[in-house]
Amino acid sequence: MEQDTMRKLNNHLGTYFIYLFLLIIGFSCNLDQKGANPPNIVLIFADDLGYGDLGCYGHPTIKTPHLDQMALEGMRFTQFYAGASVCTPSRAALLTGRLPVRFGLASSSMRVFFPWSLGGIPREETTIAEVLKRQNYATGIFGKWHLGHKDEFLPLQHGFDEYYGIPYSNDMSSVTNDWKGASLFPPIPLLDGNELIDSEPDQSKLTQAYTKRSVDFIKRNKKNPFFLYVPHTFPHIPLFASEEFKGSSLRGLFGDVVEEVDWSVGQILKTLKEEGLEENTLVIFTSDNGPWLTVGDTGGSAGLLHQGKGSTFEGGMRVPMIAKWANHIPSGSTSYALGSTMDLFNTIASISNTQLDGIEGQDGVDLSQILLGNKEKIRDEMFYYLGDELFAYRKGKYKIHYKTLNPYIGEKAQSHNPPLLYNLEVDPSEKYNLAAEMTEKVIELKKLSDKHLDGVVETENQLTKLDSVMIAPLFGR
Amino acid sequence: MEQDTMRKLNNHLGTYFIYLFLLIIGFSCNLDQKGANPPNIVLIFADDLGYGDLGCYGHPTIKTPHLDQMALEGMRFTQFYAGASVCTPSRAALLTGRLPVRFGLASSSMRVFFPWSLGGIPREETTIAEVLKRQNYATGIFGKWHLGHKDEFLPLQHGFDEYYGIPYSNDMSSVTNDWKGASLFPPIPLLDGNELIDSEPDQSKLTQAYTKRSVDFIKRNKKNPFFLYVPHTFPHIPLFASEEFKGSSLRGLFGDVVEEVDWSVGQILKTLKEEGLEENTLVIFTSDNGPWLTVGDTGGSAGLLHQGKGSTFEGGMRVPMIAKWANHIPSGSTSYALGSTMDLFNTIASISNTQLDGIEGQDGVDLSQILLGNKEKIRDEMFYYLGDELFAYRKGKYKIHYKTLNPYIGEKAQSHNPPLLYNLEVDPSEKYNLAAEMTEKVIELKKLSDKHLDGVVETENQLTKLDSVMIAPLFGR
Repeated sequence: MEQDTMRKLNNHLGTYFIYLFLLIIGFSCNLDQKGANPPNIVLIFADDLGYGDLGCYGHPTIKTPHLDQMALEGMRFTQFYAGASVCTPSRAALLTGRLPVRFGLASSSMRVFFPWSLGGIPREETTIAEVLKRQNYATGIFGKWHLGHKDEFLPLQHGFDEYYGIPYSNDMSSVTNDWKGASLFPPIPLLDGNELIDSEPDQSKLTQAYTKRSVDFIKRNKKNPFFLYVPHTFPHIPLFASEEFKGSSLRGLFGDVVEEVDWSVGQILKTLKEEGLEENTLVIFTSDNGPWLTVGDTGGSAGLLHQGKGSTFEGGMRVPMIAKWANHIPSGSTSYALGSTMDLFNTIASISNTQLDGIEGQDGVDLSQILLGNKEKIRDEMFYYLGDELFAYRKGKYKIHYKTLNPYIGEKAQSHNPPLLYNLEVDPSEKYNLAAEMTEKVIELKKLSDKHLDGVVETENQLTKLDSVMIAPLFGR
Repeated sequence: MEQDTMRKLNNHLGTYFIYLFLLIIGFSCNLDQKGANPPNIVLIFADDLGYGDLGCYGHPTIKTPHLDQMALEGMRFTQFYAGASVCTPSRAALLTGRLPVRFGLASSSMRVFFPWSLGGIPREETTIAEVLKRQNYATGIFGKWHLGHKDEFLPLQHGFDEYYGIPYSNDMSSVTNDWKGASLFPPIPLLDGNELIDSEPDQSKLTQAYTKRSVDFIKRNKKNPFFLYVPHTFPHIPLFASEEFKGSSLRGLFGDVVEEVDWSVGQILKTLKEEGLEENTLVIFTSDNGPWLTVGDTGGSAGLLHQGKGSTFEGGMRVPMIAKWANHIPSGSTSYALGSTMDLFNTIASISNTQLDGIEGQDGVDLSQILLGNKEKIRDEMFYYLGDELFAYRKGKYKIHYKTLNPYIGEKAQSHNPPLLYNLEVDPSEKYNLAAEMTEKVIELKKLSDKHLDGVVETENQLTKLDSVMIAPLFGR
C-alpha cells in the first residue's frame, strides 16, 4: 500500500513535472512571440533611386537580381511614398514618423542641410533607434545621415550605438562638385562614431565599406535583437562604383552604382541566411525620394510616374519599397496599399512590441497587418510638402495639387486655382486633370487638407541656421 | 542437343527481342526529341498593350497575377519589339517573319486595313501556321486577324484549320466608333471559319469567347502537336469587359480589360497543366504595338519609354514579352536580348524542327538558344518602319532616328538632319541626343541602314486597295 501510494505520488509528480515543463516551454515560446526576442530590423535606404530603377519595377537594363529575389520572397509595394521629395526632410520623416515641417526640418528656402548648416534634428524628437533602445536593440547606422553634422546632431546622440559614414550628400565636396559653391565646400568628412577618420574619402569604396560594416554588425549582434540602418550614399550624384562594378552595367555608370547597391543588399541577405536569422529579421528596402532628372543619364527614372526629385508629382515621392520577413510576410506578394516611410516608424515599433508615447510617430500608421497579409489597406491619405508648404494632398485615389513645381526646367512654383485633381489609381502618370468635372471632390479634399494644416504647428527652423563665416564668400561672389 | 540448341536459340532470340525492344523504345524517345512529337505552341497577342501595363513590368495598379506567375516560371524580355507600331503591319510581321514593307502590308497613307479595304496578306506569303502544317500541327486562331477580310485573305486560307473572331479592329464598328467615319462602317462581322455568324457581337463577351474556344481547342488536340494563336481584341479601344470584370480594377475600365486578358492567359495555362501539356508547350505572350496615348485613360502606358502606338520612339514598338516552357526555359529569368515578333516565326520553326525555304522568315532570327538559356544575345539590329518608310534604326545599343512623329499631339513627321542618336541601354527613355558628340556612330549606322534599304523591294501595296463605293460617302462629306 505504501509502495503503491508512493508510486501514485511519483506518477502524479511526474505528470506535474511534465505539465510544468510544457508550461515553461509554452511560456518561453510565448515570450518569443511577445517581445522577449523581438525581430531584428534591417532598413536599407537608397538615395535618389526612382520608382522605375529596379528590375522588379520594370527597368529594362538595370539588373537587380538580389532585390528582385527579395521581392519574390517578400512583398513589393506600388504606392509607397518617401516623406519628402528631397533628402533631409525625407530622412527626418523616416526616422521620426512625423512630418518634418513640425520640427523645423522642412524649409522652402533651404531644402537640405549643407556643410555650412548649424542646425539638425532636435533633441526632443524620438528616432526609431531611440524607440528600439527601449527594447535593448543594438542599433547601427552605416551610411549617409543628413540630419545635422554638428556633434549634438550626429547619430550617436540620437539612439545609435554605432555610426560609420558621411554626414551629408556626396556632392557637398571640395573636389567632386561642379556647382558654383564647390570651391567653398570643405572636404567631405568620413566619420566613425563621433570621430573624423578621413576627409574626402574615395567614394568608389563607400558602398563596399558600408556593406562590410553592416555584415560585421549583424554577425556581432546575432544574439541580440538589432536594428541595422543602411542609408546608402548612392545613386545620388556624383556616381562612383568600385572597380568590380565599374563598366559592368548595360545602363552605364548609373546602372553600375545601382547594381552595386543591389549587390550590397545581397550580401546582407546572405549574411542573415548564413547566421540563421532569416525568420527573425524584417528587411526593408526603399528610397529617400525620386530620381534626379536634371542630371542627364547620371540620374534615374520614375518609370511611368511624372517628374522626379524635388517635385510633388508622383515621380518625386513615390518610391520602390520591398519588405521581406521569412514565414511572416507572404512571399511573392504585391501590396497596392498606400504607405509612407513615416509608417515604418510605427510599424517597427509595433513589430518590436514597443509602446509609443505622446506625439511619437504622430504622422505614421502601423502597417504590420499589411505586411503580415492580414489587411489590404490602412493608410488613406498622403501629404505632399515642398519645403514647409503643402503642395498637394491625396485622399484615397484622388490627389489635389495646390501648387506644382517642375524642377526639370527650373521653373518657379505655379499656383493652381482651381487646384489640379487626378485619380492616381486610374491615372498614375497624372495626365488627366479632373478638377473641372469633379468640383465637389475638390472641395472635399480642400476641406480635409485645410483641417490638417490647422493642426500643424511650425517650430524653430533648423535648416535656415547657417554659419555666416562659411557662407560669406558664397554671397560675396 | 537439339533441345539444347533450341534453348540457346530461344535465349538468343530472347536477347535479340530485348535489344530490339530497347532499340524501338530508344528510337521513339529520340523521335520525341527530334520532331515526331514537337512541342505545342501557344501564342497570345494583346492589342495596344504597352510596355508598362503589366504588374511584372512595373504597373502600380493593374493586377496581372497570371502573367506575373508566367514570368516567374519563364523568361521576361525587356528589349522585345513588335514588327510595327500599328496593328496590320505588326501582325503581318509576326505571322511571316518578314518586314511588311516587302509584301505590301505597310503604307504611310493607309496604315491598317479598314472595312473598305480590298487587299490582304498575299497568297505567296508563308505564315507560321503554314510552316507548322508541314509538321502536321493542328492550327487554330481565336481572335482578331486584321490581315484582310475578303475570303481569300481569311485565316483558313492561310494555314489555320479553325478560326473564330472579328477580322479587324473593334473600333471599326457601326455603333461604337465616334470617329467621323463611324456611320460609314458596316456592322463588325463575327466569323467562325469563313462563315459570318454574327454582326456587331456583344464585345463584352469576346475575351471569354476566345478563351472558351482556345481551351476547347487545346483539349481536342492534346494528342496532336498544335499551334494556338490567340490575338485578343483588347485592350484596343473601345474597351469592353465582361460583367465579371467590369469595375474590378483599381485602374478603371482599361485595367478591367487587361485583367480579363490576364485571366484568359490563366485559363489557358491552367488547361495546359490539367492536360499534362506543360512540359511540351511553349507559351508566348506579347503585344502588337505600344499603348494608344491619344485616348485618355482608356489607353495604356509605355512605362519609362517615350511615346506610344503609331510612333517609332521606343514606346510605340517595344512591348512586354513573356515566354514559358516548363523544364526548357529557365524559370524566373529576364532576357535583355533584342528580339522582334518576327523572330517568333523563326524560333517556332526551329523548335518544331521545320525547315524554312527561300525567303521564309527573312527578317527574323531564331531566338531558341536565348529561350533555352544557352545564349544571351543573337539579334543585333532593329528596323523601325512607319508605314513603308524607315524612320529609325537600331544597331546594338545605339538607335538613330531619321524621322520622328509624335502621334500624341497629331503633328506631321519631322525630318532630322543630322539624325537623332540615342544610347538605348543607358537612356531607354530617349532623352539625350548624342548625335553631335558621336558623328562617326551616326555615319556608321546610316551606312548600315542604307545597305538594308538597298535590299528592300516593295511590291504591290495591299493597304491602298480600297472599295470606291464604300469610301465615296467618306470623301463626299
